[in-house]
This record gives sequence, C-alpha cells and structure tokens, in this order.
Amino acid sequence: MSIDFSFMDQVLSLHADDMDVVVQPSVPWMSLNEQIKDSGLFFPVDPGPSARIGGMVGTSCSGTNAVRYGTMKDWVINLTVVLADGTIVKTRRRPRKSSAGYNLTNLFIGSEGTLGLVTEITLKLTVVPQETSVAVVTFPTIRDAAAAAAKVMRAGIPVAAMEIMDEVQMAVINRAGSTAKKWKEVPTMFFKFSGTKAGVQENVKLVKSIAKVHKSGNFEFAIDAEEQKTLWSARKESLWSMLALREEGHEVWSTDVAVPLSRLPDIIEVSKKELDALGLFASILGHIGDGNFHESIMYNSKDPKERAAVEKCIKDMVDRALEMEGTCTGEHGIGLGKKESLLKELGLDTINVMKSIKGALDPHWLMNPGKIIDLPA
Amino acid sequence: MSIDFSFMDQVLSLHADDMDVVVQPSVPWMSLNEQIKDSGLFFPVDPGPSARIGGMVGTSCSGTNAVRYGTMKDWVINLTVVLADGTIVKTRRRPRKSSAGYNLTNLFIGSEGTLGLVTEITLKLTVVPQETSVAVVTFPTIRDAAAAAAKVMRAGIPVAAMEIMDEVQMAVINRAGSTAKKWKEVPTMFFKFSGTKAGVQENVKLVKSIAKVHKSGNFEFAIDAEEQKTLWSARKESLWSMLALREEGHEVWSTDVAVPLSRLPDIIEVSKKELDALGLFASILGHIGDGNFHESIMYNSKDPKERAAVEKCIKDMVDRALEMEGTCTGEHGIGLGKKESLLKELGLDTINVMKSIKGALDPHWLMNPGKIIDLPA
Repeated sequence: MSIDFSFMDQVLSLHADDMDVVVQPSVPWMSLNEQIKDSGLFFPVDPGPSARIGGMVGTSCSGTNAVRYGTMKDWVINLTVVLADGTIVKTRRRPRKSSAGYNLTNLFIGSEGTLGLVTEITLKLTVVPQETSVAVVTFPTIRDAAAAAAKVMRAGIPVAAMEIMDEVQMAVINRAGSTAKKWKEVPTMFFKFSGTKAGVQENVKLVKSIAKVHKSGNFEFAIDAEEQKTLWSARKESLWSMLALREEGHEVWSTDVAVPLSRLPDIIEVSKKELDALGLFASILGHIGDGNFHESIMYNSKDPKERAAVEKCIKDMVDRALEMEGTCTGEHGIGLGKKESLLKELGLDTINVMKSIKGALDPHWLMNPGKIIDLPA
Repeated sequence: MSIDFSFMDQVLSLHADDMDVVVQPSVPWMSLNEQIKDSGLFFPVDPGPSARIGGMVGTSCSGTNAVRYGTMKDWVINLTVVLADGTIVKTRRRPRKSSAGYNLTNLFIGSEGTLGLVTEITLKLTVVPQETSVAVVTFPTIRDAAAAAAKVMRAGIPVAAMEIMDEVQMAVINRAGSTAKKWKEVPTMFFKFSGTKAGVQENVKLVKSIAKVHKSGNFEFAIDAEEQKTLWSARKESLWSMLALREEGHEVWSTDVAVPLSRLPDIIEVSKKELDALGLFASILGHIGDGNFHESIMYNSKDPKERAAVEKCIKDMVDRALEMEGTCTGEHGIGLGKKESLLKELGLDTINVMKSIKGALDPHWLMNPGKIIDLPA
C-alpha cells in the first residue's frame, strides 16, 4: 500500500516575531526548515530525514540536536487533537510557557496515536546559530569514545551534537558510497559545534583536550558549509546506507535504549561484544550525549534461527539497559515490539495508570489499538 | 497553623556522574543547591526563595533562569507518586531521555496535587557555568524595556536571565532596604549572563547594542560575586520586599500571565496604565524572555470596593492575555482563583479531557479537591 502524504502537509502560519509556526502533521521537518529559512529561524528537532511532524509528535522523537536543544516534547506549544468520540480539542493557546491545567500537550506527545488524532501542531522555533562547525575524530575503541562523550557532558561543554558510530557503521557508509570521502573504519565520533564565532572556537578547544585524554586521533574539520553537510549526512544517512546494502530476503532490525550517562561506556562495550558475536552485519551508533544509542542488525528474515539469535541479542541489550536503571527506548517508542519491555521497565501499576488514561479518553480502544498497551482482555 | 516542613526534606542520593539527584518533596531548591555545590552541579529552576521541590512539581513552576534552562517540566526525570487508591507508582526509571509509554511525569507536573501525592523526585542537574555576570540597565518607559527584551530573544542571544521591573518595583526595593544600594526608580532590566569568559563578553556586547536602540541608559555591572548576589537578590526578593511593606489589614495580590513574545510590549504597556489608574501601590515585573510577567498589587483587604477594583484590574489583564492567544498563568498555576479563566482559555471540551483524566485516576475526587477543575455536580 502506498500512502498519499500530500494530505495535510501545509505550513499554516509562521509567526516569526513570536518564534513559532503552525503546521499540519504531514509536513516533513526538513521541508519545514526549507520553507521558513528566510526568517532566520529553524526547528531544531532532527530525527531521520524522512520524518514528518505528526509522527515525531507520536513517538516523542529526538535526533542528533537533542543534546543541545532537547527533544520533541520541548518544542511543541500546542496540539489540535481529534478524540475517539469525534470531539476536537486544542491543548493550549500560543504562549511559549504555561502552567494552566494539566499538561495535555505532553500527554499526547509520545502516545503513538493511541489517545487521539493530531491534526495541527504549533511548534517553537529558534534562531539559526551564527556559526556552525563539524568535526570528526576517531578512537581506538568504542569504549574510549563513549568515555570521552560522558566527560564532555560532565564538563558542561555546550556541543550542538555528539554522535558515535562504530567501525561497522563507518564501513557501511564507505560501502554505500553515501559520501565522497573514504572513512577510516574505526570507532568515530561526530561533533557539531554551534553558536557565535568565539564560542565555537572555545568549545572546540575544550572538547579536543578531553578527547585527547581518551586516546583520540586528530580532529578533522569540514572546511566549508558543503563539506559540513557531507560529513553530517554521513551520520544522518547511516540507516539508509545500511538499508541500501540489504540483500534479497534480508531485513534491518534497528532499535534503541538509553541509560544514565555514567553507564554508557559499560553498556556500549558489552553490547558491542554481543553484537560482534552474532557474526552478522551489525553496527552501533548513537546520540551519545543523551545516554541513548542504537543497534542496527542485518539478518536473513527467512532463517528462523538467525532471527531468533538477533531477537535474543536485542532483548539482552534492553534488559541490560533496564538493569542500569535505563529505558527500553530513548526515542523510538514502544509500538507492538516493546510492550513486554515496557512492563518490565515500569511495572504493572504504572502501566495500569496508562491504561486508565487510555480507557478514559478512548473507552472503546479505537485509536491505534494494541500499541503501547495490550487491549483489555 | 504552622506546618512542619522537616518531614520528607532529605536529599536521598546524588549521582554526580549521571548528573541527577533524588530528593524528597520538602527539600527547598536553594538548600538542594547548597548541599550539592561541591559536585560542580546545580539545579537551575529558581522560583521564589522559599519554594520547595514538591510545590515546584505541583505548579510546574519556572523562575528567572527559565529563559536559558527551561521550566520545571524540563528538569524532572521521574516521580514516585501515591495515587488516590494508595497504589504507589514510579513514572520512569533514571535515563535522561525516554519515549517509553505515556509521559506520566509531565502529567503529574503541574497537576497541583489533584492526581496524586508526590513522595520522591529525580531531578536532572547541570554544570555550574564558568563565568557569570549580572548587569542592570534602565529604560525611559516599560514599553522600551519590553521591546528591547523581545529583540534580544529574536536575535537568539543566549542570556541566562532577563527580568523586567517597573519604577514602582524599584521603589519597593529602595523602601524595603533589601539591598545596600539605592536604585533609580525607573523601568529597569536585570540581565544575567553565563557561560565561558569569551561567551559572556560576546553576549554582553550584543545585548548592549540592542538595548541602546531602545533608549537604554548605561549598563551597570556587578564588580564581584558578592555584588552579583546583591543585584540579583534585589530581583529575587521583590515579592518579599513588597510583603514587608504591608500595613495592617493590607494584602498583596500577585499573579501572572504569559503571551506570545511579540505581544509583550503591548500587554505590558496597557496593563501598566490600568495598574497606575488604580491609584494603589502596584508593580509589574516579569520573566520577560518567556513572554511571562507578574502584577503585584497591595490593597486594603477590608475595603470591598478596593478589592473589587483590584479584582477587575487583574481579570482585565488575564482577558487581554487570552485575546492575544496567551495563557492565564505562565507559572503560578490555576488553584481556585483562575478556574474560570482556564475555562475561557481552553474551552469546555479541553477541560472535559482534564476532567476525565482526573476521574480515571481519582474517581472519588479525594486529591486536592476543587483545584484546577470544579468537583462534579
């Protein structure tokens, strides 16, 4: 089935002086930024290149900019929602800040369409930074890279983004030919710096000195905006690069977890070992500044034994995140696949609170039934 | 009645490497920051000096730092809540980011105790900035000051705080003798800058040039940390200063609204005129970077005519905020006093969604009954 996304894909009104914009759910975030660029403003939440605002609301997504700008829930001013009984509600008016009544906006964000159908979204915007710099640096092991990342956060250096990719993911980019450059196939970190000229220079210096302590190689900087785009696209297109390499009958299982910052080097190191032990084409990459990372595993979907091994590997990673007081998903959401993990993460009593909210707003369980929470027996 | 706040006032565990802390609800935010200062971390949400974390969760509060750091809802990782039926739930584990199920954390934040009793809170912390600078600058009119503030935001200059106080509020500080210095009794803005040395210098320069266009006087900078504290305390103690000036039988009515940024100069100008027309001791001050401001009016609570005039003045300000697509409260919450305004702001259908959530979690309306929403008839 092909879906016609041209339905409800309009930017309805840009309020440049208020730094907000009203959009329909089917507007892609990249197209939104293209349409408003003359205002000097942009919408900073940047998940996968194909994402649309409605889906981003549904999963409470984030992206590479989250370490500096926060996640979807920090950037929505109000939502217009059609409820299960057809009532249309607006969760707030248009101030950037409000403490008027229950925070329905954030209740609908991340509810994966189970509480209502979002038809209009007012988003906060922010000012495009004067200066942006993109740098790439290698590390001998992924643990060194993760440890450097934790130190950068703990030092309070305001990086705009800080992404990790393992040697496999770097190989994927080389093999897919997604960038002009050939990359070293070793654990690599991508940094984005933004702000004023002096601020960027200062932050680069601070990050370099921390990276060095963790055995980094040299920093490579993009020489101009075009090269910045190329470097960053290598990161942004990592999933597509992997998908492009799929052979007949193969699928990519891509999933994420998040843990408290200090546990990141531990979980990444163990998970990487288990991933390698699968003997499959599998990579780790992540929004490491938030304690959030992803695994992508390519497997033969027609081989039940292979599928089972992949499933176990992922289940183990999720359980490990939970043991570390983490979450089974930092930004992808629960859907059908992680309902059991959600129960393990939060316990039945907390799930029952979610259930009673679902029951109150959608008594006949009509909206996206079975996602996040099982239908009542 | 005096309340014993020593109950549940413990900082339970500081995870410095994860940059979070677990506290009980009766911990004052100022005491929390005092207790954790050796870690180099702090909790940035700074409402009135007497506020405690539990109350701050209840009202979804903010404070002067909100323009840089956001509000309460951005700094809570998880809550432990006792529900009306005695069930104890935890809304999340301890990752800084999660999209696992409904965002119950943000549902309880700002629910003013009507959905459950919060017994434990995990808060995000951030790194104390290297450099802080505090400056004070005067403007010929409050409209000039508000217009300058809107421009500073629109230019994307990352001020740490930006507060406005009218001439009356400056007089209050002088009369209460809360600071050693005598202030000019004219509209005044307080700026806080923070970051690295170079960053602070750069931001000061940018703000100065905008302020000048809006007819500012000279910037006065604090010469050292002690003077910074004094300058900032003049702002933080503004409400206490006013309360200290009360005569027998007088009360201070303090309330807030927020509007989209571009409407701030308009609403402040008109509201100021109406406030002056009351002929009472009344001031405007505000977190102007968020489009949020406060009125404080001293009145004779034994004079029904005077009280009625004050009530009308405030109602008019709230209605004006709503006409401008704003909110009846940016950070104080609804309580009993603003239920009618909330209904006007969001409409019956949205209130009914809140009602059905309340009914689902607290079917007998036991928790803080009558706040935010009327009890069912």
